[in-house]
Amino acid sequence: MVNTFENAKERVTQTPSLVIDEHTVRQNLSRLQTYADSHKIAIRPHTKTHKSQQLARMQLESGCRGLTVAKVGEAAVMSEVCDDILIAYPAIDLSRRTRIAELARNHTMRVALDSLQGIDSLAESATAAGSCVGVLVDVNVGMNRTGVSTAQEALALATAVARYEGPLRLDGIFFYPGHIWEPAQEQQAPLQEVDERLGEVIELWRSAGLQASIVSGGSTPTAYQSHWVSSQTEIRPGTHILNDMNTVRAGFCDLRDCGAAIVCTIVSTAVSGKAVIDAGSKTLTNDRNVTQPDSGFGHCLEYPAARITRLSEEHGELDLSDCANPPALGERVTIIPNHICPCVNLQTQMQFQTLDGSLTAMEIDTRGMTS
Amino acid sequence: MVNTFENAKERVTQTPSLVIDEHTVRQNLSRLQTYADSHKIAIRPHTKTHKSQQLARMQLESGCRGLTVAKVGEAAVMSEVCDDILIAYPAIDLSRRTRIAELARNHTMRVALDSLQGIDSLAESATAAGSCVGVLVDVNVGMNRTGVSTAQEALALATAVARYEGPLRLDGIFFYPGHIWEPAQEQQAPLQEVDERLGEVIELWRSAGLQASIVSGGSTPTAYQSHWVSSQTEIRPGTHILNDMNTVRAGFCDLRDCGAAIVCTIVSTAVSGKAVIDAGSKTLTNDRNVTQPDSGFGHCLEYPAARITRLSEEHGELDLSDCANPPALGERVTIIPNHICPCVNLQTQMQFQTLDGSLTAMEIDTRGMTS
Repeated sequence: MVNTFENAKERVTQTPSLVIDEHTVRQNLSRLQTYADSHKIAIRPHTKTHKSQQLARMQLESGCRGLTVAKVGEAAVMSEVCDDILIAYPAIDLSRRTRIAELARNHTMRVALDSLQGIDSLAESATAAGSCVGVLVDVNVGMNRTGVSTAQEALALATAVARYEGPLRLDGIFFYPGHIWEPAQEQQAPLQEVDERLGEVIELWRSAGLQASIVSGGSTPTAYQSHWVSSQTEIRPGTHILNDMNTVRAGFCDLRDCGAAIVCTIVSTAVSGKAVIDAGSKTLTNDRNVTQPDSGFGHCLEYPAARITRLSEEHGELDLSDCANPPALGERVTIIPNHICPCVNLQTQMQFQTLDGSLTAMEIDTRGMTS
Repeated sequence: MVNTFENAKERVTQTPSLVIDEHTVRQNLSRLQTYADSHKIAIRPHTKTHKSQQLARMQLESGCRGLTVAKVGEAAVMSEVCDDILIAYPAIDLSRRTRIAELARNHTMRVALDSLQGIDSLAESATAAGSCVGVLVDVNVGMNRTGVSTAQEALALATAVARYEGPLRLDGIFFYPGHIWEPAQEQQAPLQEVDERLGEVIELWRSAGLQASIVSGGSTPTAYQSHWVSSQTEIRPGTHILNDMNTVRAGFCDLRDCGAAIVCTIVSTAVSGKAVIDAGSKTLTNDRNVTQPDSGFGHCLEYPAARITRLSEEHGELDLSDCANPPALGERVTIIPNHICPCVNLQTQMQFQTLDGSLTAMEIDTRGMTS
């Protein structure tokens, strides 16, 4: 296959280097926008994947409604390029809710919450800041991580938010179908189950006079099946802009749709049957592949038969048993990581390969913002 | 047990926060120094664990001979506090060897190499820079990651280095017994095997008129058994300064010897039987425990029965099945990570708890330096 990164591979001055390909990024964004437009679903991409104001701007220019972030530090940075931000995280502690309330003075801020305590304390912070924060009630649709599990609990939270009219604004419902990794053609049943759960909540709210103007869900694995959740008004995929071996091996995209790669150097071939790249867990993360956990810690474009079997912090070991022509010491190779989001978070810069093939350094503006 | 971080836990302004305890750090350093002094073995600690000039200075003040780094960016930063630095990495590519040769103009730089190509190209760079770089021949003693496997290969490399007298200097032998994680009392046999392999190399070098003035090995798991490798002149442990659940669960230290912890907030208790902390893989890494891989992604000091069973990037899920008194929403808890080195690398700052109990921000000077 053609290696999108062949040109950049020889041009980066040091390795490991994370390269982002503009052409692939634009294709990935436009393909999903076309699908979403045809189903009248908005996209509010999760910026945790790229952590870049520049890529966020490209998403907004391609038609996205707003942006999603996990942490408040990210919200502050992304509010410089977008006026409508959803914090997809139970930001209930004093530090987070104070900063959100302050940001809400000049921006539309929305927060997903799953507790009365969270609602009470956010109302307190917004009152103190003299601002209004939108709240989406987090409903657990099967991921079992956050979110209330029954329509009655969701109604209790919505009612509490509505009572705080002024500092808070009831925006709607938040859910995350992160447990759905079935192949696209098998997603209809689990997504219809999600649709039913949400339908119950919406119906109960309606009978209490409450409305969910936003129903926010979606993930990269379910992105192109979003129409199976009839009440959904917007989706929050993150990975789709860059893709990775998780989305490739699960069948959600092709290898050529991967817009991010790590250019590495083979730094040792001393141990028989092995080659060592200068990218370990400090570059690739120790994340195993979601659907094929034994496939190794990434995929080598030049030597697809070389499996990355073990990572130390700075060493990646390639098992060459199935490699007819093994790589040479000092050679550069291109790795597609299993999970691109935490991988971007580990770098200090990205190299952006523009449409004309030139490389420019791109900042990772929200790197390491965990609070 | 007493929680070393109890005081800091309430004083950090936001979570997750990495706290380093000075008292524990000083104890850990002094204990190993006493052992090493009694066996006349030097310590050249690996700074990848803490990535901090301030902690490196404490190590040098406690009696360490020099410092170890993995990458050249780290060498540049650490050369500001120490004049004798070993790059424990096959730095064979143009960018790395050029920078090493430049640093060697004003500092003692030593590099572990395992290939003739690496030796030839480093000599070329040192010649160009007008400097002299020390070389340690990397011998594989069972880790099977880098290093030559036979005494004959080690001799061939040593001979090549010796021929480059001027730009290169033959410093000795490098090895890494990273495969040895047996309990201390079972390490005698594997370490004696290492000793024999090294003995063969040293004997062959001697018969060829070559000397290994430095024999550099050691790891945190084997640190206190270093005397079983008779030819070893220095050890390079990293983790021992802070410790983590890897060293605790393997029996190399007690929980109270852990000098680093992540202070978190419980941000969700909506899903029955679970609590969610605001530290996921972007804070704790996805590293499993080395000797007890199913023990969870870290250890909660306040709720030892709460197992951290699943991490997303920003969520850590605690299974509360065995917890008589579960934590409350909004409560802060203290987590000892499985593997502290990559965990430090993910933070933007550390909070340093000094001997008087005050907290000061400490930079992570070599964070993210992968090249």
